[in-house]
Formats: sequence, C-alpha cells, structure tokens
Amino acid sequence: MTKDVWIGNDRLSAQLAFLVEIDKLKSVLRKTYLIDKSRLENSAEHSWHVSIWSALLLEHADDPSLDLNRVIRMLLLHDLVEIDAGDTFAYDTRGYEDKEAREKAAADRLFGLLPDDQREEWTTLWREFEDEETAEARYASALDRLQPVIHNYYTGGVSWRKNGIVRSQVLKRLEPVRQTSETLWAFTQEIVQKSIDQGLLLDDPKRGED
Amino acid sequence: MTKDVWIGNDRLSAQLAFLVEIDKLKSVLRKTYLIDKSRLENSAEHSWHVSIWSALLLEHADDPSLDLNRVIRMLLLHDLVEIDAGDTFAYDTRGYEDKEAREKAAADRLFGLLPDDQREEWTTLWREFEDEETAEARYASALDRLQPVIHNYYTGGVSWRKNGIVRSQVLKRLEPVRQTSETLWAFTQEIVQKSIDQGLLLDDPKRGED
Repeated sequence: MTKDVWIGNDRLSAQLAFLVEIDKLKSVLRKTYLIDKSRLENSAEHSWHVSIWSALLLEHADDPSLDLNRVIRMLLLHDLVEIDAGDTFAYDTRGYEDKEAREKAAADRLFGLLPDDQREEWTTLWREFEDEETAEARYASALDRLQPVIHNYYTGGVSWRKNGIVRSQVLKRLEPVRQTSETLWAFTQEIVQKSIDQGLLLDDPKRGED
Repeated sequence: MTKDVWIGNDRLSAQLAFLVEIDKLKSVLRKTYLIDKSRLENSAEHSWHVSIWSALLLEHADDPSLDLNRVIRMLLLHDLVEIDAGDTFAYDTRGYEDKEAREKAAADRLFGLLPDDQREEWTTLWREFEDEETAEARYASALDRLQPVIHNYYTGGVSWRKNGIVRSQVLKRLEPVRQTSETLWAFTQEIVQKSIDQGLLLDDPKRGED
C-alpha cells in the first residue's frame, strides 16, 4: 500500500512510505500505564511525552548548554525500532540478551526506507541515543527512564507490582539520571523512597532474609 | 494528586505537575483513524507523528532555511489545549465558532501550571502556531493538515465518508500547504484527485445539481 510513487518524486515517495510505516509505533504497547490508569501507554505517545519533558526540564541538566534540538530529535525516533523488535521491558533480562541484534535489524529495515542521506542521518542519531556517550544522549536517556517512574508513582506502582520490581532494579535503570543532573537525581531518590514508603515499590530483600 | 512539592524545588514541582497533567492528551481522540484502521488516533501520538513529518520533509518547504527547531516545538505543543477544549473536527463549522475562546481558556489554565517564564514562552509558541503568520507556523500547520489526508487516503477515506466531507472542504483546509511548499502542494492536489477517482472522497456537487 505504500508503493505509490507521488508526482514522479522518488525522494518524497520514499519519505511518505516511511511516514506511513512508522504509524505502527502507535500500536506498540509499553508496560507503563497512562496516569489515569485507563490503559497501557504506547511508544508513539510516550515519545511525544518525553520530548516535551526534555524541553521543559533542560535547566536542570548539569550542562544546560547541551543541544536540546538533537535531544528532541533523538527522543522522537528512539523507539521506532520497536515497530519490528517490540518493546523490551526495562527489567526483562532475557529479552535484553538479543535486544541489540533485534533492534539493529529493525533500524536497518526502517531507516532503509528513507533516501540515503536521511537513512544515514537518522541511523546516526539512533546510534547516538543507544550508545549514551554524548551529553545529549545521556540527558535524553535520563528522561526516557524517569518518565515511567512518575507514571508508576501516580498509578500506585501498578506496573512495578505486576512485574515484581524492587528498588535496586529501578535505581540501576535510572543511572543516566545520576550522570546528567544533580537536581533530577535528588528528585529521583526522593520519589523512589516515597514509593517504597507508600508500598508502591518493594524494597530489596535484606541479606539473609531471601 | 499533582500537589507534591518535590525536593523543596518549586520550579521542578510546577514543571512536573504540568508534565503529569498533559498526559491527558493521550486520551483526546481525533476523527482520524490509524493507518491500520484499528482505532481512532489520539492527539498525543498525532503530535509525535507530525513532528517527525516536519523533520523529514523540511527540504520541500519553499524556504528550507526556516527554523525547524521552533516548528517541532510548536507541533509538540499545538494540541495541548484540546485537553480542556476537546478536538474540534476540522470541518465542524459550529464547533469553530467558539473554538478560539475555548482554546484560549485552556491555554491559560494549562500553561498557567508552569513557572512564569515558561508559561510565557509556551503561550507565545502556541499563539505563533495559531496565528499562522510566520513561515515556521505555516509549515507546521501545513503538516498538521496534510497528515490526516494521508491517513484518510490509506484507510479508504473512512473519516471523510463518515462525515460527508467533499473536495472543496479538504482543499480549503489544506491552504497552508499551498502557502508553504510548491512540491507538497502538487502532491496534495494529486492525492486529492486520486482519492476522488478511487471513490474515497466526494467531489463537490455540480451547480444546478444540488
């Protein structure tokens, strides 16, 4: 259905085929609930949400001079590979074993729909996000990981409890926050402690008790 | 539920209250279907999609030197007012009568959750989008209007047919495309004609026939 060639313009036709294809991200469900608990969140609306998070909270980054525009572009595209590879739950260690290979194949296929220069550009941005080696990628990743914590907090920890997640797993996952923002890291520790105090998140089993 | 004050930081607390509040955009349904026809699209995932449209198609703007970063920011926030005001269907003339007042009140409340400087910044961006007076706003608006046409085309015109929409209404709505990109306007005319030829969109009644 995406093979129409429009106005004899190969570039535009390829771009439109890609834009039609990525509509599928709206049907990839995450493990996180909307804050009103009505349903699971999908990866497209999540990508929208964290893009706004990144714009709004930039002042709290340890280096607020980082390039927000690249951050937003990374966040807009960071989950596209899930169209083929699915959403790997943050705490699914088995799923993580072949996550990289699955997502690499997905990136090759999806970005391969684009004209060469854009395929290159978008693949590079996606790799930057995945590698977490630049300040921009770490900040983007920090928000990608902080947003579901907020959703868990405001939905009574439903996704944590359903999946038997404990404190150390959440904190480990939030490491990019520590690396990117003192303020957001202080907040993160506070919300994790509050979640434990309110019984939304399990503490780690004490040594000798498990 | 959003009244927690976090780490004694009023700014961060206000920003988080806003980020929690805008989660509601994921529950605002549009009249447009996903391309797989499985359900109606919501305004949050639509905002994500058109942001990517804008990044990908910039080269086709008559003025490709326009500020894409401002375009993306406008598209990320352009529908937030629907949280209070609802999605006014593009062809609902009655709904358009008080659309401006409803959306103004929504903007006041929603952006009013933010710290003053950000309230000002986001309200200004939203107004720029609404006023369509800058090249950036017109380009953003063009994509906001073109995307549902593509969805209609690939879903057999279901939303057009359900709502009895005819050619002149669609073309009028697409006026920002004409103003912003010769290439996209040629494409627009082609997809509208194809939609008519395939019976997805009704032609206007001929004079004397209606």
